[in-house]
Amino acid sequence: MIQGILLDLSGVLYTGNQVIPGALTALQQLRDKNLPVRYITNTTRKPSAAIIKQLTAMGFNVKLEELFTAPIAARDYLKDNRLTPYLLVHPELEEEFTTLEQGDNVNAVVVGDAAEGFSYDRMNRAFRYLLENANLVALGINRYFRDGDQLCLDAGPYIKALEYASGKTALVFGKPAHAFYMSAVDNIGCLSEATIMVGDDIESDVIGAVDAGLQGILVQTGKYRSGDETRLPGNAVCVKDIAAAVEYILYHC
Amino acid sequence: MIQGILLDLSGVLYTGNQVIPGALTALQQLRDKNLPVRYITNTTRKPSAAIIKQLTAMGFNVKLEELFTAPIAARDYLKDNRLTPYLLVHPELEEEFTTLEQGDNVNAVVVGDAAEGFSYDRMNRAFRYLLENANLVALGINRYFRDGDQLCLDAGPYIKALEYASGKTALVFGKPAHAFYMSAVDNIGCLSEATIMVGDDIESDVIGAVDAGLQGILVQTGKYRSGDETRLPGNAVCVKDIAAAVEYILYHC
Repeated sequence: MIQGILLDLSGVLYTGNQVIPGALTALQQLRDKNLPVRYITNTTRKPSAAIIKQLTAMGFNVKLEELFTAPIAARDYLKDNRLTPYLLVHPELEEEFTTLEQGDNVNAVVVGDAAEGFSYDRMNRAFRYLLENANLVALGINRYFRDGDQLCLDAGPYIKALEYASGKTALVFGKPAHAFYMSAVDNIGCLSEATIMVGDDIESDVIGAVDAGLQGILVQTGKYRSGDETRLPGNAVCVKDIAAAVEYILYHC
Repeated sequence: MIQGILLDLSGVLYTGNQVIPGALTALQQLRDKNLPVRYITNTTRKPSAAIIKQLTAMGFNVKLEELFTAPIAARDYLKDNRLTPYLLVHPELEEEFTTLEQGDNVNAVVVGDAAEGFSYDRMNRAFRYLLENANLVALGINRYFRDGDQLCLDAGPYIKALEYASGKTALVFGKPAHAFYMSAVDNIGCLSEATIMVGDDIESDVIGAVDAGLQGILVQTGKYRSGDETRLPGNAVCVKDIAAAVEYILYHC
């Protein structure tokens, strides 16, 4: 029985700014059935408001509280534990953390895809906070990403650098971290075995979710590559696209 | 039988710019006996010429060919293997590599303590060369160093970042890397078991050298801390200072 649905965004609902055919209708079908949905993404360059704006412009009807990103999960963790962060994140993402206490008494270093923000000076500041008493909080540990025709370093390498320098281990938010999937399941209010994750990344979306006790659906759009389905774990299926995924869900809910 | 001697510099021969008492006489005694000596350091901010200049100013009589640093070992490796480097090193160190072929066909990324040179842009360029076909060459993998009253990130964290991003493993020069001690022994032209390393760092100088098959002497100057001698491996002794170390060597050669 499927009671809750986690949906990846890019590659599942749209590619670039192009809606994947059938996506709008499929999401409306889930809404008509009153099935709880969370939109899950590892994006660490855009705050929630900007993601909602982008989705709305493409015709999707997504509420702020249905969005569950690595930065949101990290922010909630900082808030629950009353931690004051030092932010080594993309400038556009900083607004996601403005509701938190700011101050000199830093006890968490938050690292996302800071790009040019990964200067020697800021890395040193982060490192010194870690040597004092701060925790290391990672918004994903991806190795690199494609920007136009070039590959660029993502947050992962810089997190490994700070782990090596400080001897601390990062608390990782974002897919495929087990704790992140647990937070999402907690957020949607369903049992993990009754929650299904739909994504185009066999590793991060499907294997990661199944490892955390969820069910999984791999769609053959976005970054899917022929042959990915041979790596499907138990408790996961592979279907053509988001429309077929919703058809499968409606049949099993 | 001791036939060759490797000497650490800072903390063994001098502290800051102060010569350690007895050091000048001790080195002269080694020279009078015609014992081959190599001066071994992990410093990656100064080219050989600057190190010789500093030693000469303090009264030491050291020839360029007696100096064996991580950058020198790395440069010789690049030369022997006809590799064209991309240098992610301190600006002052770049001159150490000017004798090498330069060009667009980069097939080695050389990483030292580049400090402010560790920009996002240069890290990305290094990463892209690694993804193409370049080797990763590390001038030491130290975690951090003290600069005045602050701790600063050394090359090690950035090398770990590039290893994680590219999936490659760095070839590490500098103490305590086994291959580095082997190169030094090769350079001095003695058998490893007939070569002794004198240093103030129990880990990097003494345990590292003994692990590579050399003998070791720990001196109680420089970064030596009381109790370090309890960690002495077999084939190593602990003495007061460089004068006592040379006395021991002259007795065993």
